[in-house]
Formats: sequence, C-alpha cells, structure tokens
Amino acid sequence: MKARVIVTLKNGVLDPQGKAIEGALGGLGFGDIDSVRQGKVFDLDLRATDKAAAEAEIAQMCEKLLANTVIENYAIEID
Amino acid sequence: MKARVIVTLKNGVLDPQGKAIEGALGGLGFGDIDSVRQGKVFDLDLRATDKAAAEAEIAQMCEKLLANTVIENYAIEID
Repeated sequence: MKARVIVTLKNGVLDPQGKAIEGALGGLGFGDIDSVRQGKVFDLDLRATDKAAAEAEIAQMCEKLLANTVIENYAIEID
Repeated sequence: MKARVIVTLKNGVLDPQGKAIEGALGGLGFGDIDSVRQGKVFDLDLRATDKAAAEAEIAQMCEKLLANTVIENYAIEID
C-alpha cells in the first residue's frame, strides 16, 4: 500500500528556507509571489493491507519521527 | 492564489535520506515498511489570478530553481 505524508511548518513558525527561495525566485524574475513555505514529503510503501490500520500506524510514525509536532503539521494521504 | 509543488526523486535515483528514515522507523518498531523516499514540498502564494498562467509560471519556477529535472520530478497542484 502506498501512502504519502506531507509535513509542513505550522502557521506563525518562521521559515527562513522558504524566504530564501522566495528571494531567489524574485531574483530570477518571478515577481508576483507573496510567500513561499517549504515542507517535506515522504512516500511510504507499506506491506499493510488494511487502510485504517495503515493510517493509524503512519500517524504514529509522524508523531515519533517524521514530524516535529511542536512546530509542524502533517497530513496523510493513502492511495 | 495558492499552489503546492511536490518535488520527488525519479525512480532509480538513490535516496540515502529515505533509506536512513526507513532504518530509523524499523528501529522504532515499524517493521512492515517496504520503502521510504523523501521529497520536498513548496507552498506558494501567488498574486496571479489566472490559473493557466499561474501553472505555466510555476512550471518555469520548477525548471529553473525548485527542481533538478535531471534527477527529480515535480507535480503542481493549484487550488
């Protein structure tokens, strides 16, 4: 079973990496950008076959390793 | 207009970061994982209002800065 986890910074958390990308895009002539924020994506391939169980397991993975829930949100998409 | 760009490694390109995460998840007791691959996500906030024009502009951003198209694929999602 394939799943995708998207980890993004919470609103209000500073994102210097995103700011740098925003500046670089401006320098390349892309001027009409209000903001850029960068996050991470994890594509998981699981042997589990039960969708609900897989989602619960992935949520545990996010809480324990994939996301820092103090400053990051995560979203799980399962095919 | 909000847009999301997801940049992932192409198939066949080694992903040592994903391998390390896979190993760490295994060490935490998540044993039923076949593979993990890590990518990047960019959340853009654009002033453009025309969806097709915005998508074309974002594709240009990906080609020029956000993705290394030799080894990475990109996908654009526009709300």
